[in-house]
Amino acid sequence: MPHLIAVDWGTSALRGARLDAAGLVLEEKSAPLGILNVPNGDFAGVFTSMFSDWMKPAGTVCLISGMAGSRQGWIEAPYVACPAGPDELRRRLHWIEPGRIALVPGLSDEQGDVPDVMRGEEVQIFGAMRLAGLAEGLFVLPGTHSKWATVRNGRVTGFRTCMTGEFYGLLSQHSILARTLEADAPLDEAAFLRGVTCAGNGEGLLHNAFGVRALALFGRLSPAESASYLSGLLIGEELHLQELPAGGKVIAIGAPALAARYALALGQRRVRVRTFGAEATWAGLSALQA
Amino acid sequence: MPHLIAVDWGTSALRGARLDAAGLVLEEKSAPLGILNVPNGDFAGVFTSMFSDWMKPAGTVCLISGMAGSRQGWIEAPYVACPAGPDELRRRLHWIEPGRIALVPGLSDEQGDVPDVMRGEEVQIFGAMRLAGLAEGLFVLPGTHSKWATVRNGRVTGFRTCMTGEFYGLLSQHSILARTLEADAPLDEAAFLRGVTCAGNGEGLLHNAFGVRALALFGRLSPAESASYLSGLLIGEELHLQELPAGGKVIAIGAPALAARYALALGQRRVRVRTFGAEATWAGLSALQA
Repeated sequence: MPHLIAVDWGTSALRGARLDAAGLVLEEKSAPLGILNVPNGDFAGVFTSMFSDWMKPAGTVCLISGMAGSRQGWIEAPYVACPAGPDELRRRLHWIEPGRIALVPGLSDEQGDVPDVMRGEEVQIFGAMRLAGLAEGLFVLPGTHSKWATVRNGRVTGFRTCMTGEFYGLLSQHSILARTLEADAPLDEAAFLRGVTCAGNGEGLLHNAFGVRALALFGRLSPAESASYLSGLLIGEELHLQELPAGGKVIAIGAPALAARYALALGQRRVRVRTFGAEATWAGLSALQA
Repeated sequence: MPHLIAVDWGTSALRGARLDAAGLVLEEKSAPLGILNVPNGDFAGVFTSMFSDWMKPAGTVCLISGMAGSRQGWIEAPYVACPAGPDELRRRLHWIEPGRIALVPGLSDEQGDVPDVMRGEEVQIFGAMRLAGLAEGLFVLPGTHSKWATVRNGRVTGFRTCMTGEFYGLLSQHSILARTLEADAPLDEAAFLRGVTCAGNGEGLLHNAFGVRALALFGRLSPAESASYLSGLLIGEELHLQELPAGGKVIAIGAPALAARYALALGQRRVRVRTFGAEATWAGLSALQA
């Protein structure tokens, strides 16, 4: 099998890895050249400056996942509808140079009359499946827009996006809660878990979020505790909406500190977490080549 | 009974009315001198410049409701715990000049281990009760921080705050949704009601809010429709959390355009709405004098 150049081209960052024939990572590089920071929209130029050396060996193939395949990216690679697995994505690769450079499409799902979308996370899921030796399970990819995906027989059967990270930023920095909240305070586990518990009270986020303000007014949450409590409220709300495998396991893919918060919250529900990081992306792109 | 000067001193505005002995409004005035805009924190000076003429007749009494009684206001008038009615508030008036000028305290409630607070809305509720001739019911005061209050035997037995208006501002102006949303578009009733319906799907606001983005990406909501749909999602979420009197009535107190949105959403749940505006504040302060 030819060498693979695996590229994750997201909104704010561009990362790449050079893999050997067995899929082992030989070298990695990254730059703050996410799709919103590509000078003059010259994606081909950025690609060449970053990866032309790696692309020199004959037969080298490059697969690119993430927002580079969106309408605001290099070229739009239309979404593939769920259920979809590596086979469906491989058939719908969008070749920029046939046989040499391709964009990986994202996935879409439909719930009621409302669509949902992901770009890049599907590759991480397939990578984590390969690394964990799993063909099914519940996957969470925490972040600005968290994704929860269900996998059956190696294919994503459906998923949901939650704006958890973005809500945290808006509420902690731009809302009335910001006045009594230290957004960057280190995690206070007790306050965080108190927020997770509160989220299960059935009163809803619109109301529970105001509780952060009221607790602070009454001196019952410090600014540092308020940040962890709000984080717990939001992650708890997100968990509350999932059908969790009681006594079972969730696969988390993302930054360790954030995945650790999900593990804490899920632990309260007796669900274990196994975590993967950047390696899931490279494994996923490698799985698409196979 | 002496003439009453009724004052609603909120965060951004200062409004007053001169009432006759029967409680009829003789004159009104207002200024953009909310508690955050009082020069040098000179509340007494602003009060004198606005109302000294009205206060001249011997025996005139002034009652002030709203944020002027908060910690950031003129003097803090501590919250009165629910259940509370006009009698409890009258006994806990905070006199600035004994027998002449008083601040009306706000109400507090406690749900689980989380407090809730209102300041000013309690007076509007007691006013609407008097105007409608009601001693019980479910009251909604829509706004930045909407309040839902239950009244039994003339007293507020409990209430909930929902950050509905603030969430609308954050999401429509500062989130990813802002890119495809015309925040000031006039109401599109069909899109609004579609949002209200969606809010009842059990998927939660963190997920449903992302649907606004996905629907726009797929060209299934225009920027103007997106604004109404998001408004419907938020108001629908708020309604979803209330125990609504099926086939019954809710009293809405607030700006007509906003109250009309609640009436539309509640109509979908077969709940009728009766609306009151600024007159509820004057009637409420008048009820406290009696």
